[in-house]
This record gives sequence, structure tokens and C-alpha cells, in this order.
Amino acid sequence: MNPQAIRAQARPLELFAAIEPELRQVEAALEEALATRDRLVGEVSTHLLRAGGKRIRPALVLLSAKFPGSNPEKVIPVAVAVELIHMATLVHDDVVDNAHLRRGQPTVNAVWNNQVSVLTGDYLFAKSFALLAETGDPRVVRLMANVVYEMSKGELVQMASYFDVDQTEEDYLRRIAQKTGYLIAESCRLGALVAGAKPDQVEALYQYGLGIGLSFQIADDLLDFMGQAETMGKPVCGDLKEGILTLPVLHALRHPRYGEELRRLIQSRSIGDPEVQRVREILEAAGSFAYARRLARQYLDAALAHLDRVPELASREVLRTLADFVINRQF
Amino acid sequence: MNPQAIRAQARPLELFAAIEPELRQVEAALEEALATRDRLVGEVSTHLLRAGGKRIRPALVLLSAKFPGSNPEKVIPVAVAVELIHMATLVHDDVVDNAHLRRGQPTVNAVWNNQVSVLTGDYLFAKSFALLAETGDPRVVRLMANVVYEMSKGELVQMASYFDVDQTEEDYLRRIAQKTGYLIAESCRLGALVAGAKPDQVEALYQYGLGIGLSFQIADDLLDFMGQAETMGKPVCGDLKEGILTLPVLHALRHPRYGEELRRLIQSRSIGDPEVQRVREILEAAGSFAYARRLARQYLDAALAHLDRVPELASREVLRTLADFVINRQF
Repeated sequence: MNPQAIRAQARPLELFAAIEPELRQVEAALEEALATRDRLVGEVSTHLLRAGGKRIRPALVLLSAKFPGSNPEKVIPVAVAVELIHMATLVHDDVVDNAHLRRGQPTVNAVWNNQVSVLTGDYLFAKSFALLAETGDPRVVRLMANVVYEMSKGELVQMASYFDVDQTEEDYLRRIAQKTGYLIAESCRLGALVAGAKPDQVEALYQYGLGIGLSFQIADDLLDFMGQAETMGKPVCGDLKEGILTLPVLHALRHPRYGEELRRLIQSRSIGDPEVQRVREILEAAGSFAYARRLARQYLDAALAHLDRVPELASREVLRTLADFVINRQF
Repeated sequence: MNPQAIRAQARPLELFAAIEPELRQVEAALEEALATRDRLVGEVSTHLLRAGGKRIRPALVLLSAKFPGSNPEKVIPVAVAVELIHMATLVHDDVVDNAHLRRGQPTVNAVWNNQVSVLTGDYLFAKSFALLAETGDPRVVRLMANVVYEMSKGELVQMASYFDVDQTEEDYLRRIAQKTGYLIAESCRLGALVAGAKPDQVEALYQYGLGIGLSFQIADDLLDFMGQAETMGKPVCGDLKEGILTLPVLHALRHPRYGEELRRLIQSRSIGDPEVQRVREILEAAGSFAYARRLARQYLDAALAHLDRVPELASREVLRTLADFVINRQF
């Protein structure tokens, strides 16, 4: 396996130009972390590295660590560990969702099988915690273990809430925090923490990360209602068909005029293309898409306000632009 | 859920009478660790606690911590964490093996499905690492992360070696260390470590645990060839039918008289009851069962010799008896 060939697959956003050398170190350290003489383990690892990814979470670790006096040698392993956690959750999610494609690449369960996916995910989690332990800082391990704990609990709660029209927006917000927000928030917090930032700076970056994470997930859930199957690479309203109720739906369920009809549609538990069309009309008419967009914008604004609290952070403008990127891509 | 009812399901070996109060604390702490208001998560946790188990690994932590001046408050969380890791690996193994019964109880994948099992295992791993991090000792996290890493790698290597007649006894011994030995060895080591034992005492207990772990696994693999399907609760020679080659088989493959026939039988990759009968005859005639028993005995003797190095350990006689128990149950 040619390391150059693998690295070429990773697509760091242009925005990350300022941390390109460190991102390259992260990529090399990822390869090193996954290097093994065991054939199957090696093949799966190569597959995962080749599949690439935007490495947004490690980039957030690196960018949140740009405090004066920060030591890159302490930051890189955390950045690698965060990406390994992310990879592990994706590999396990693809089993949970029975997904065969991710970012246009066949998933581990598609190339091998669910068994290999389960073990590979465990292997990645374990490797990640071993790296985190090597920082010598138990806080780092505890915070990240709690993220994984919340993520898996969030997914279980989601599975128990399919087609549940009585769940609240609060339930939804908690779920997306567990699913997406906490890992992004923790990437920022841990970067600041190992860089030796002060407690209020660490907290500000956590809140920044949580804001962009929630905003991103609300936007991502909105995308599920938009566009065409061909451009999305997955079915339109796939969430709804599966029974996963996201923010616009929960908003419209409370609407005095459309709530009852929507409730009946969902409780039929059989949502095909004609029903999807009607649900989209309802969400538009009830102003539910606009409502969700507004909430996503609010979380972003809150995230940006938290950035104002860390003028010492050299990468603050990049993080600001990154927040804009979340909006511009989605809206 | 009545905590008394759950605790009644746990079956500590009589041998553990000396640590019964601490084992009860472990059980209560396990319940506490898995307590949640989320419905599905709670149901799965209750199911796992009710399924019980002998709690051998936490018992080994407690017994290995019986050094003068040891602080139970530091030992209990490690004992709980070790059992959570064990539970997580069982839940994931049942997905990997597509098993529907364990200790006579339906598995999580049987009651719910593979998705719930994947997430529950992740949840248990995460909870365990959070507990380990709370000891404030990064060594504890690093050592246990490495165990999980080796376990998942070992299972992947095993999956890649089905029906592989060219694997060696060394491959087998490495695999069972990964699968069973390291977790038992680490349970002993961590008990001694958090009890403040000296490095050579910590090492002696690690080696004791590794010895009984390997001995136990060799014995367990031998059991697969013995007995009847009815008493075992699983098919006789299930490993072999699946393509998992254990010590007696690897021994007989090198036999000048029987090796070639056995190789052909295995390479046919279709081992039904008539073939199983012939394999058992070959293993008996080649002295392969006796060979495996001898090796298991050697590992036990080595384990006992390591115990001689820790006269300060108050529970040494219990650990000695525990080693005998491994033999008496199996041979």
C-alpha cells in the first residue's frame, strides 16, 4: 500500500490550508495507528483510510489548540483519536442502518460483513482510547468516553422512537446533540484543553463546537427533505420513511391546522412516495422548513458569539469561516 | 425492577465467599452504572444484569487487590469496569457468532436485534472506559484499551483463518491469549496495580492470570470435542464445523500418520457429523487430546508458580483453589 496514494484520497477543506502540515501529520499518524501485520485487519484499515473523509473533527482539534505556547506533540494524538472514534461510529452506524455506500464508497459491511464491521469498530474505539490514555490526562479519556456513551445511548433512544409522534423538540435536540453535537464540541474542547487554554476558553470552544454541531445536524436533517434521489445518493425523505422524526416534522405536528393530518400519516407507519409528497407540502405550508432553518441559524450565531470570547486563539477567523461554511453549503 | 431479584441471578462461586461483601458492592455498582431513564437502554441493561454470570473477572480484580493497605474504594470501580468490558464483548460476540442463547438465556440480538446489540456493546465499552478514567490513573485505561484492541484484532484474525490448515500452534496460542487470556491477566494486574502492589507483584499476578486464562481456553476448546449436543447446549465440534481450528486439530495436522487425511477433511470445508466422528478418532489416535490436556496443565502449573512469588497476598489460597477449579471442572 502506497501511503501517498492513501493521503491523496483525504480531502481537507481549502479552509484548512493554515493547518495543512498538521493535518498531514494526523494522516500519517492515522496510518501508523492502523498499521498491522494481520492481513484482514490491514485490509479493512486500508479500505477505511482510502475512503478518506474531510477530517473535520481532527481539524477542529488542531484549530482549537492554536493558543500561545501550545505543544503540537500533545495535540496530534488527540486529533487522531477523535477521528478514530468518528470512524468507529461510522462503521457501526453502517451496520445499524444496513448501509452499503458511504461517500460513494462501499461500506465495510458491504465489502466484508456485519461481523467484520462490529469487530473493526471495536478495534478503532480501543485504539482511540489507548491513544487518549497516552496523553497521561485522565480528563481527556473521561470526556471522550462520555461522548461515546452518549452517542450509543442516543442511537438506542432513536431506535425506540421510530414513528413516535409524541416525542418533543427537546427530545430531538437532545438526540442530535448525542449523535453529532457532543463529538464536535468535544473535539474543540479537547484541542483547547491539551493546548493548556484557561477554563473559560476551553468552555467557549466547547460551546462553539456544540453550536456548529447542532446547526449542522439540523441542516443535514433538512437536506433529507430536499433535492432529488439522484443527487443525494440516497432516497429523499429516507429518515421519514424509516420513522425517524426530525425537527420540521415535530414542528408541524404541533400545528393547529396540519398537526392532526400529519399525525395520522405518520401513525400509518407506511410512508411511500405519495405520502412523502403530502408531508413535504404540509411542512412547507406549516412553515416548518423555515422554522428549522431559523433554529439552525440561531445555533450558528450562538457559536460565533462564543468565539468572541477567545481573542487569544490564532485560528479564530478560520473557525468563524468554518461556521459560515456550514450555512453556505446547506442554505 | 427489583434489585434483589437481579442480584439473586448472579451466581458467585462458593470459592468467592471471602469476597462476598465486595462482590455485592460490585453488583450494586454495576446496576448503578447501567441505570438510566431511557426505556430501551434500561430494558437491555436489566436483561443483561438478570442474565447474571459468575463475575469471575471482577472477583479476580478483588482477589488480586488483597495486599496490605489496599483501598476498596479504588478497587471496586475497576472490578465493575472489567465486567462491563466482558459484557460488551459477549454482546458483540453474539452478533459475530449469530448466537441466540448464552448461559441458557436469550441473547440481546435474539430479544432485540443486531443493531441494538452493536449499540449496547458500544455503550458498555464507553461506560467502562469512563469508570476507568475516574481512577485518575492513565495506565489503567491504556492497559484495558490494549486488551480490547487485542480482543477485537484476535477475533478478526480468527475470522480470516477459518479452515486454514497452515496456521501454527503459535498462531492458536496468540489467538486465545487475545480472546481470553489478556482480559483475565489484566483483571489480576489491575487489581494489584490499584491496590498499590510492587511492580514484581503486579507482574506475578498478570502472569498468574495469563496462565489460568490460557489453560481455561484450551480446556474450553477441548470441551467442544467432548460430550453430547444435549448436555452442551450447543453442537458437538461446533468450532470445527465452522472452520475454527483449535489446539488438538493443529497438533494432529503435524502427525506423520494422520496429518494428511485430516488436512484433506478440513480442506473439503464441509464437515458434517460423519466427518466429525472421523476427526475425533484421528485426534484420539494421534494423542492430540492428551497433548492439549498436557499443555493446559503446564499453563496452570506456571500460573501457580507465579502465585508463589506473592506471599503478601491475603487471598493467595483462594487464587490457588481457583486454578484447581479450572482443572477439576474440565478434566
